[in-house]
Formats: sequence, structure tokens, C-alpha cells
Amino acid sequence: MLSLKHIAVTSFNENLAYIHKDCSAYKVDDIKVLTKVEIHGGVRPVYAFLQIVDDVKIVKPGELGLNTEAFKMINLPEGANISLTIAPAAPSINAIKRKIAGNILSAAEYSSIVNDITAKRYSNMDITSFLVSSGSFMTAPEVLALTEALIGEDVLRWDNENIVVDFHCMGGVPGNKTDIIITAIAAAYGLPMPKTAAKSLTSCAGVADTFAVLANVNMDEETFKSVVKENRGAIVNYDALSIAEGSKIVSTVERHLGFLQQQHLVASILAIKMAAGVTHLVLDIPVGANSRIKTTTEAMRIRKLVEYVGDMLSMEVDAVITDGSEPIGNGVGAVLEARDIMKILRNKPDAPQDLLEKSLFLAGRVLEFDPQLRGGQGYVVAKELLTSGRALEAMNKIIYAQGKAPQPQLGHLTRDIVASQSGIVESIDNNRINKIGVLAGASQYPGAGLDLLKKVGDTVEQGETLYRIHAVSATDFAFANSVVDGNTGYEINSKGAY
Amino acid sequence: MLSLKHIAVTSFNENLAYIHKDCSAYKVDDIKVLTKVEIHGGVRPVYAFLQIVDDVKIVKPGELGLNTEAFKMINLPEGANISLTIAPAAPSINAIKRKIAGNILSAAEYSSIVNDITAKRYSNMDITSFLVSSGSFMTAPEVLALTEALIGEDVLRWDNENIVVDFHCMGGVPGNKTDIIITAIAAAYGLPMPKTAAKSLTSCAGVADTFAVLANVNMDEETFKSVVKENRGAIVNYDALSIAEGSKIVSTVERHLGFLQQQHLVASILAIKMAAGVTHLVLDIPVGANSRIKTTTEAMRIRKLVEYVGDMLSMEVDAVITDGSEPIGNGVGAVLEARDIMKILRNKPDAPQDLLEKSLFLAGRVLEFDPQLRGGQGYVVAKELLTSGRALEAMNKIIYAQGKAPQPQLGHLTRDIVASQSGIVESIDNNRINKIGVLAGASQYPGAGLDLLKKVGDTVEQGETLYRIHAVSATDFAFANSVVDGNTGYEINSKGAY
Repeated sequence: MLSLKHIAVTSFNENLAYIHKDCSAYKVDDIKVLTKVEIHGGVRPVYAFLQIVDDVKIVKPGELGLNTEAFKMINLPEGANISLTIAPAAPSINAIKRKIAGNILSAAEYSSIVNDITAKRYSNMDITSFLVSSGSFMTAPEVLALTEALIGEDVLRWDNENIVVDFHCMGGVPGNKTDIIITAIAAAYGLPMPKTAAKSLTSCAGVADTFAVLANVNMDEETFKSVVKENRGAIVNYDALSIAEGSKIVSTVERHLGFLQQQHLVASILAIKMAAGVTHLVLDIPVGANSRIKTTTEAMRIRKLVEYVGDMLSMEVDAVITDGSEPIGNGVGAVLEARDIMKILRNKPDAPQDLLEKSLFLAGRVLEFDPQLRGGQGYVVAKELLTSGRALEAMNKIIYAQGKAPQPQLGHLTRDIVASQSGIVESIDNNRINKIGVLAGASQYPGAGLDLLKKVGDTVEQGETLYRIHAVSATDFAFANSVVDGNTGYEINSKGAY
Repeated sequence: MLSLKHIAVTSFNENLAYIHKDCSAYKVDDIKVLTKVEIHGGVRPVYAFLQIVDDVKIVKPGELGLNTEAFKMINLPEGANISLTIAPAAPSINAIKRKIAGNILSAAEYSSIVNDITAKRYSNMDITSFLVSSGSFMTAPEVLALTEALIGEDVLRWDNENIVVDFHCMGGVPGNKTDIIITAIAAAYGLPMPKTAAKSLTSCAGVADTFAVLANVNMDEETFKSVVKENRGAIVNYDALSIAEGSKIVSTVERHLGFLQQQHLVASILAIKMAAGVTHLVLDIPVGANSRIKTTTEAMRIRKLVEYVGDMLSMEVDAVITDGSEPIGNGVGAVLEARDIMKILRNKPDAPQDLLEKSLFLAGRVLEFDPQLRGGQGYVVAKELLTSGRALEAMNKIIYAQGKAPQPQLGHLTRDIVASQSGIVESIDNNRINKIGVLAGASQYPGAGLDLLKKVGDTVEQGETLYRIHAVSATDFAFANSVVDGNTGYEINSKGAY
């Protein structure tokens, strides 16, 4: 028997158990490395991964320390009597071995994997093993099975609503935060849109990061539901809700690995939308040679996949393939993106037209989920709602209801990247722009990012600014500067010079 | 600037950095989960993975804690001024993404991956990602490239020795510790055999575990070399040597995952042997339907692979495909296996004949590396060295030189598994026997394991003991008991009953 101690360390979803090297109850020398243990004493066993301690100020030989994640799960007071045994391998680990060997897994196997993940029987290494093993290929029924498993037990219910809409983008295009504008338009129209948004995984800013510049996004379920009820729309950081927990744990590992696979992304998006009670979803699949999805063939494969999974789950999915050849909007990074969005909602003449037009087009597709709306009228109605100021009004109500955010400052370490020759901007490399933005600190600081002053087709003079880097931290600024000179991401065609 | 503190926690090869949530120098809220950081202040930057602390007794806001692994690497006193930045992704991470996508990687890519692993730029998740991504397929040149990368910089030199022999087994067969007998015979013959042995990865006992029952196996390089020099043989736990460090780190993760891929195993074995200065290697490839290598085709593929890699590295490899259809010897588990080995070396009449014969056959192959020995004479000479007692004498000298171990006790929680009917033992399932042994605690406690009293072809009466389970811990004993009734691993053919 050991005495429970809380070690106030957060280890990003992983349960850790701290045991003294001279533990009185267990011979640590005999413990093989990285051992998984099962801790007994609470209502049910808690799984954790051992750390060996040689400092009685952390844990004494008669104690077992649990990090914050594991301590919450065991739900016992400090000093409680607990014991531990070596945990047998999680039952679903064999399924992963089968997947590594190239097999197709059954729905039962996916369900068992996700159950073991949410029960914290998987270490982050085991989760990595699952992600990478299924990262090379998954059949459509496998993606469906993973989606169903990720939905989880708790699903939001929207009483008396026949249609609950949402919009999501497969990503890969810097800027491109149509989501927030679409939410404003749908809410102004009156379709309930409980938008679940994520923080950035590999990009400069996720929708949750950008909207956090304008409003509080960390709402609990009750607040989220009441904001949607009263304002017909809300944008929540889905991490703050208790839904699709498996998907969150998996995302943490994906973020660490910087590895995001299309089929996992499809399963994760659709599971979250299902768990959020969405019935009708518009999904944007942007295609561009330097984007996440590089060819129309690939985009079509994803479209078919989401249509299949959507149909099987009785969710109406309208998957739209769009142009992802260059960044959308001028701002890349949360503060700059929020600026673009507010310019559009305020009908400012200098608002980025590409972001405006794309938002209206996609909002139109969302509005057309309404059976009352005549086919083909979505775009017109969306435009009317925007230009009349009703979308802005709806957005302001949502921001007020969620709680206005203290707007963070734009990073004031700046550098202008200028054209090395006169000509026409022939292309902008999304991946490169994203990389420079991430290095400038955009995924860490909302005020960091890139302000794109020129877009494809624009005429530039030699020495004219193409874009401006904004950084908050000097280190990030140095990082961005160190790579930008090698390749700015812009290609100028000088033959087009006048 | 933060003040360095040592957090006396061992985290199994992974560098961890502990930062207070109200850190004075860094805004922890802005740090994304599982962030990799670069710590500056030492001779070169040290990479680590963040843990967020909410207890000033562990770290204060002005401190940065490093676990034992990272603290050793930074090599600065506590209180030293250090700073941290977000670490850019390790350069070789892209190669892993290419491998997940099904590409063949170059030698430069494998070299860069292994360099990043040994520099601790990979988290254990990143290592998992590498192992699983290359776990589905590797070409022979890829295995060669990985082997070369794993050899590392430090290679043992054996001055004035033209032939340095070793023996290794690909595993999968319980018992089967021919290695120790072969070492005794080679040493008695006079061929230098610096045997590098490993602790168990997925089996009941590794060679290092079994020999640890008889002698100290944790020698440093100097001791190891002097024991070999004076006794023509030694058996070391290779973890104790400073060679092939990349291979050790990778093994730790493999042990945690319980995932061992043939090609990784080949690369790891050959890299360790190269790093140990071995010039001539006999490799045992046991084949059996319920073993690790299931078919002759698979075994032949491995044989060709090790021959190719051996040739490219100028190591003479004699790969021998052997019968792995049932356990070899009677003991499974370190203490029981050591008992069998000593019975053979002492020429006891009740010594297991299968282990004896296999050891002589393989020792013969090792001896025939000697150009002085006439082809086909290896077995005869090996037998002569054994029966004359010279192999025992050589072994005793090695044990004495390495330091005799205080022999651990055989587990005294026992249960006899008996035949449910009379007949002939038709088959024994290696995987099942291994599993029951592991559950009985064999990979944790040297005294745990199975004593196989009957082997294939033996006649048994109903109720006669087939094997005896030995456990040290009551929990393990219960584990083993809970599975053994479902399937003992033995098949009895009653038609053969008299």
C-alpha cells in the first residue's frame, strides 16, 4: 500500500505516476522501462506511466505521486491508500499491430482503440503508433468506424430545431477565415449555427484563435447553448466542451508530431460536428499546388469520403471544392485575420474582396439548407444580409453574449518584404507563407503573423512591399528573418512588367 | 533568464523540462501543448519537452527544472543561468512524413534521423512515429542505411585479433539460451567472443537477464575488454556500454510499445555487433508456426537480408535457419534457464537434450570461423570441449571475472498444469507459453517463469504435470492463472495413448 500524493504537473493529457526509486512496496529495479501501471484504490483503476524519482521532497518511498491528469481521474484525497500493479497491454494494441501489417480494421477494433484512448490506457507513444499505423491508408468504412468511435457518448441536443447548420474548412490556405463571416450571416438569417472551432494544429491560427481576438471562446456547454439559442449563432473552442474527448486527445498528439492526415482529419471533423448536434454541414475543400490538398483528384476523393461518411451518419454534408492556390484575405495570424473579418462585416471599401466573395458564396450554400429558400438564392440573400449591416449586428450580439475579448496588440517587431523586381505577382506559396508565419510566432502569439499587401495578379514595382512580418518575440522575429531571405514565398513575373 | 534546477526524475530516455505556470520569463498560456524547447546556456543547446508545474516546491516561476536525463546533458550546476526558446522541428521529421507516405528513404535521411534521436531532438512520440512509419516496409538498402546509422561513432577495437566472433538469435522461442553455452565453448576453444546481450524486449528473459542470474552483466567497456582478453569470452548487458546509443533509445520505445519489427531488429543486432567490433557472427533464425518467424520463406528473406547487410559492412555473417516449432530446453525465465545451462555445462544426465544439441550445432558453426579448423569438424570439437569439462571451466572463469551474482530464488508461488487426457504431446505453442510466462512475471522477476516437464513427442498420462508455473508476486500469479485455464499452450493427441 502506498500513500497518494498529488504532483502538480500537467503533462498534456498523459497520466504519469511518480514512484521513489527505493519504493517500499515495489522493487523499482525490477520494473522495466516505460512501464504502464494500473493504480487501484479509486472507483475504477487508473492507468499511468511511471517516472522514477530520487528526491523525497517529490515523493517518499511510501508514496505514489500522480500528475494532475491522473490525480483528477483517481478522484481520491491526498494520503489515500492506493496500490499498483503492472498494467497488461491495452486490449486494442493488437489491432494497431494488425494495422501496421497492412490490414483493414473492423468497426469493433476502432471502437476499442478509441475507448482505450479515452480511458487513458494509451500512452502518447501508443496514440502515435495508432496515428502513424493508420496514416498510410484507411478504407472508407474504416474512416466511418473511426468517426463513429470518436463521436463519444455525450452529444449536444438542440430541442425544436430541425436544421442545425455548421461550416468547416479542410485547411491548408493561410488567412481564409470565412467561418466567422458565415456564422454572422447564418445567425442574421436565423439558421442556428453552433460553430465548433479548433485552435491551430499546424497553421498560423485556427478559427478558435482568430475569434478569441474578438470574443471569449472558452464557453461551457450551457453558455454555448444559451448563446446559440438567443443569438442563432456562437463560436466555441471545442476543447472547452465535454464532447468528442477522444478527438481532443488525438489532436494533442497530432499537434506535437506536426502530422495531420486527411482521413483522420475527416473523421475528427465529422465526429465533432455530430457530437455538437449539427445536422447540415458545408465543408470547404480548398485545392492548390502549394496547399494541403494539392490536386482536384485528391479533393474529389475527400469529397466522396465525407459524403459517404455523412450519409451513413445521416448528416447532410455539402462538400465544396474551392480554389486554394493562394492565401485568402490579407491577414495571416489571429489579429490580422480578425481585422479583415471586421472590415468585411463593416462593409469597409478596403476589405479583402477574395475573402468577402468566398464567404458569401459559402454562406449561400449554408443558407440553402433552409427548405424555404429557393435554390440559387443563397448568395443573393447572404449578400443582402452583409451589405444591410444585419450580419454585423448579429456578430456584435454574439461577441457581446460570449464576452468581448481584450483585443491583443499587433506584434510591433516588423519587417517589410519587398519585391526584388518589377512585374506581376504570379504565385504565392501557401506552405511557405504558413511556415514564415509560424516561425514569426503566429501559432504562439495572436499578434504575430503576416500582412499580405499584394496578391496574385497584382502589379508591383521593384522595392514595393509584398508583405509585412509582425512578430511579438525577438527570437521568433529572428527565426522568420533567417528563413524569409532564402524564399519569400512570392514569385514575380517580370515579363508582365510595364 | 531562468535559474537551472535538477528535478531528480528519470523519464526513460526522454528529456523533460519543468516550467512554472506563472513563469517570469515565458508566458506559459501561449505555449502550445507538448511543446519542444531548446535550452540555452550550456556548451550546446539541449532539447526537452515541457511539463507545466503548479507547485513552487517543484519549480518557482524564475526557475527551469530539468529531469535527470536533460540535467546530465546540459552539464551545468544548479542555479546556472539558462534561457529557452521554442525548438524548431527536428530537420529529419520530414523524412518520417515521407516514409508514412510510402517512400524509400535515403542513407542521408536515416543518418539524420538517428542523429536527431541520439541528440534527444526526438520525443518518444517522434521515435514511435519513426518506428511505425518504417514498420510496414523497408528495402534492403534502407535496412543497411539504418544499420550504418545505428553503429554510431564509438566502436570497440580488439587489438591483434583477426577474428572476433559472436552469436545472436532472432528470438521468438522460449528458453533457447544457446548463447551462454556457445560463449563457454568458444572461449574454451580460444576464439575471442565478446558477447553483447540484451534484456528482454517482449520475451520472458533476454540473454542478459538469464546470465545476470549467474554473473554481473553490467560491466563498463574497460572491464568488458579485460574479461574478454583474459578469458577469451564475456557476456555483457550492452546497455552498460557506451556503444550504439541510438539503438538503445529505440529499444526503450520498442519495449514500451511491445512492437518489434524484423527489419529494425536486424539493423539493431548488426549495428550492435559492428559497434562491439565483431568480425564473424553466427545468427540463429528459428522458424515455427507459433514463433516470431512463422515460415521458411520469411526466414529465408531475413537470411538474405542479413547476408546482404553483413557483406556491405564487411562482417562475415553465417545465418542459420533452425527449428523453432517448440520451446528449447525446459526452463522459461531467467533462473530456470540458468539452471538448464549449468546442467549442460556440468554434463548432468538430466540436462535438456534439445538445448544441448542445438548449442553444440551452433557452437560448431562459430568454431568453424577459425581457418585452422577443418570444415565439418566444428560440432565434434564443440562436443569434446563440453564433455571434457573445458567449457565449464571457461564459463566459471568468465563468471568469476565478471563477478558472481547472488543467485535469485525461484518463485515459490507454483502451480502444476496437468494433462487433461492421456496421449502424446503434439505441439507446444511458443507464443502462448511466452505470454503465460510474461504474465507470471518472468520479464519482471528472474525467479518467475515456467518449467516445462514435457516436450513434443513425450507420452503423458491424464493428470500428469505438463509444466509448472513459478511466480514471485501474487498479482502476477493470479494473472497467469486467469489465462492458463483458457489455453495451456499444449496440445495432446489422445489417439497416441496406449
